[in-house]
Amino acid sequence: MSSEFKKNHVVAIDDFTVDEIRTILDLAEEMTPIVEGKKINKDFEGKILATLFFEPSTRTRLSFEAAMKRMGGRCIGFARPGTSSAKKGESLADTIRVAAGYADMIVLRHPQEGAAQLASKFSDVPVINAGDGAGHHPTQTLLDLFTIRKEKGSISDNHIGIAGDLKYGRTVHSLTKALSMFETEMTFISPPSLRMPKEIIDMLKRKGVKFQEVKNIEETLSNLDILYMTRIQRERFPSDEDYKKVARSYHLEREMLENSKDDLKVMHPLPRVDEIKADVDETPKARYFEQAANGVPTRMALLKLLQEV
Amino acid sequence: MSSEFKKNHVVAIDDFTVDEIRTILDLAEEMTPIVEGKKINKDFEGKILATLFFEPSTRTRLSFEAAMKRMGGRCIGFARPGTSSAKKGESLADTIRVAAGYADMIVLRHPQEGAAQLASKFSDVPVINAGDGAGHHPTQTLLDLFTIRKEKGSISDNHIGIAGDLKYGRTVHSLTKALSMFETEMTFISPPSLRMPKEIIDMLKRKGVKFQEVKNIEETLSNLDILYMTRIQRERFPSDEDYKKVARSYHLEREMLENSKDDLKVMHPLPRVDEIKADVDETPKARYFEQAANGVPTRMALLKLLQEV
Amino acid sequence: MSSEFKKNHVVAIDDFTVDEIRTILDLAEEMTPIVEGKKINKDFEGKILATLFFEPSTRTRLSFEAAMKRMGGRCIGFARPGTSSAKKGESLADTIRVAAGYADMIVLRHPQEGAAQLASKFSDVPVINAGDGAGHHPTQTLLDLFTIRKEKGSISDNHIGIAGDLKYGRTVHSLTKALSMFETEMTFISPPSLRMPKEIIDMLKRKGVKFQEVKNIEETLSNLDILYMTRIQRERFPSDEDYKKVARSYHLEREMLENSKDDLKVMHPLPRVDEIKADVDETPKARYFEQAANGVPTRMALLKLLQEV
Repeated sequence: MSSEFKKNHVVAIDDFTVDEIRTILDLAEEMTPIVEGKKINKDFEGKILATLFFEPSTRTRLSFEAAMKRMGGRCIGFARPGTSSAKKGESLADTIRVAAGYADMIVLRHPQEGAAQLASKFSDVPVINAGDGAGHHPTQTLLDLFTIRKEKGSISDNHIGIAGDLKYGRTVHSLTKALSMFETEMTFISPPSLRMPKEIIDMLKRKGVKFQEVKNIEETLSNLDILYMTRIQRERFPSDEDYKKVARSYHLEREMLENSKDDLKVMHPLPRVDEIKADVDETPKARYFEQAANGVPTRMALLKLLQEV
Repeated sequence: MSSEFKKNHVVAIDDFTVDEIRTILDLAEEMTPIVEGKKINKDFEGKILATLFFEPSTRTRLSFEAAMKRMGGRCIGFARPGTSSAKKGESLADTIRVAAGYADMIVLRHPQEGAAQLASKFSDVPVINAGDGAGHHPTQTLLDLFTIRKEKGSISDNHIGIAGDLKYGRTVHSLTKALSMFETEMTFISPPSLRMPKEIIDMLKRKGVKFQEVKNIEETLSNLDILYMTRIQRERFPSDEDYKKVARSYHLEREMLENSKDDLKVMHPLPRVDEIKADVDETPKARYFEQAANGVPTRMALLKLLQEV
Repeated sequence: MSSEFKKNHVVAIDDFTVDEIRTILDLAEEMTPIVEGKKINKDFEGKILATLFFEPSTRTRLSFEAAMKRMGGRCIGFARPGTSSAKKGESLADTIRVAAGYADMIVLRHPQEGAAQLASKFSDVPVINAGDGAGHHPTQTLLDLFTIRKEKGSISDNHIGIAGDLKYGRTVHSLTKALSMFETEMTFISPPSLRMPKEIIDMLKRKGVKFQEVKNIEETLSNLDILYMTRIQRERFPSDEDYKKVARSYHLEREMLENSKDDLKVMHPLPRVDEIKADVDETPKARYFEQAANGVPTRMALLKLLQEV
């Protein structure tokens, strides 16, 4: 099963081949009955996962811990930096080497870009990047892909709209790179000041991926199979007024969905603030809570494949 | 076993019928050998409880986690709000929907009254209220009832004194409501400014419950089978002087117990500060540490019944 | 196996006899295959360890939790005081009595000297001191001894250099007392203002232990079998200048090792800041990360022996 999977560490979504991604998503699907309580799994009995969160992230931490525990494993770790030796001046390299002596795998969340890469060099056990500042967050992308495939039957052959802050958004960069490995069409929806960075646009052109850039949701919504919403932060704009003028065009509400395909699915990495109105939640198009829940089987699959290598 | 128990969520003690309370307490009794290590239980193997504490409460959190773990289950969660997505502006409804995607049950502690009620509306899995501000804390009441029954053989036919801040104390309001379902006599012991609220007094009168209100412990102590002590907070009084004048009448010390029944049992929800002197601890009348320990079998029973529904 | 072990609580390394220490280290060795995943152990199935950290200490907490979990046990607790009832004014004695009602064993870290001693008086279940301010930290010493024995075949017959702040260092005091029970030679390496306290020197003289005191690492390095490094804190010196002048003599770097025995092993309780340069890490003489990892089997052995008593 793991013949397609040869990773020792998971730092960035770019590290994976299409075959490796398929292997992960296939295994994630097999994990579903365990998550639903229809099957008991003890593959991780006696095993320990260290969850080292130098920056709080409830969703990511809890779903990794749920993943480990659904397979009979245990977790040790911390949820925020204040409880770690780092505040005594210990280097990340040392913290990692010590944790690698206690645990069978490490999940690392760190505010600094490159932290996971560095950690992987010092660890004897697999390290999974659970977000390194402006860097990567590969398991978010994996669960996004898993959700698209689960909702649509395949990742390929979908027209996917990605809306919000496309300039600074780590999540949308990783997702775009991953989607470019499949046969998809993409529409990027953002204010002019927050468009997708040139490197990513160039990469898409080089690969011959079909895409366009638009300025608001409504002008493209009727074409989409998937609408992936993200947040635009107030801090990106010179004034509150500038922000308010722009942000409204990137807010989704129920009546806007009237012009969408029947089987449109709306995704969001969460947490959301006001970019999707509560009245969307009750529609069958809203899949962001299912998407969050998909983090568990996806991470189970990844933990399992890393342990088998 | 759960034929008497049809709850999906546990928000307030008022939601329970007498039969449901009996079902919980009976099952809690059966849990004792597991807590004592005489029996291994794996009913919750592969299951996950989310303990979401938006406000710290060590005692409640640890006893829920102990309850889950004594039955082979696992826990995920947070112990204080700083580590949760709430500080990124996420609504409680969203946090709950996400947690419901990771776990089989949710225990919620929140500073705002009504939080658990709201959470129960958004959760696909059972929600247990572990305290919602000035609202409810039903499992505290259940363990109080379990303790009374264990110490006295029954809840009915006891004369129970309840002392302290009866005006603002959430714990004593819930306990009084619950006791009013059984055949007990109650004496409320408080300063005039901190008497039991009118609604509760009216409810007791309506139900024909025998009760009286007194101003200090000593005038009623000799009549009591149970003395339930709670704390009076300095903040309730205009000045330190006012507080000190009053508070002394609601402090229990060993020599006061000379005028009490031989089988009086003293309870307290803990933490205590100075309202029970340390010299009481060594007497067989002090049952507050046993009471705290009773939180584990009581919560085991509740988790089990909710999972079976 | 536990015939040599009669402790109910573990407060200080001084409480152990040489036979008890040997029993612990022998059992720790047997734990190694479990830690390495070659054997599954379920001795602690259904059991709960409370880890009460009134002061953060990631390393100690995580390795105790790993130890418990490697044997199938569960943990409850807190990683820092803010989440505990202590901030509501609860006494340590009360917190301990409550925790003893939830768990089968307690690990306590507390900023105040004497906290563990006090806790042991109020607990029905075994209490292990995981550091009490300037007091004791016996499991650090046990893992130090385990490391020396593992690296050298025996504790006796080694010449052990101990460098750093020997006046205030809790770790080096405990280690020195423990080593004095075996046939070792010791060299104490420190600035004159931070020499080993008179009581310890007197104890060594009384016992006839061979030792000397020197002022820098280089004058003794070539004689040593073990070099145990610790940190010198800036706060111990009147000025930054004074600190810098002195501290350099207690920093270890790779080229200094050229004058050491081939089988010298360098240890450090961690976290280190700059007292061992990173270029030492890659040499086979560096054993501080293995030392940290040894905390797990050592603590497993201790938990097991305490549970069996």
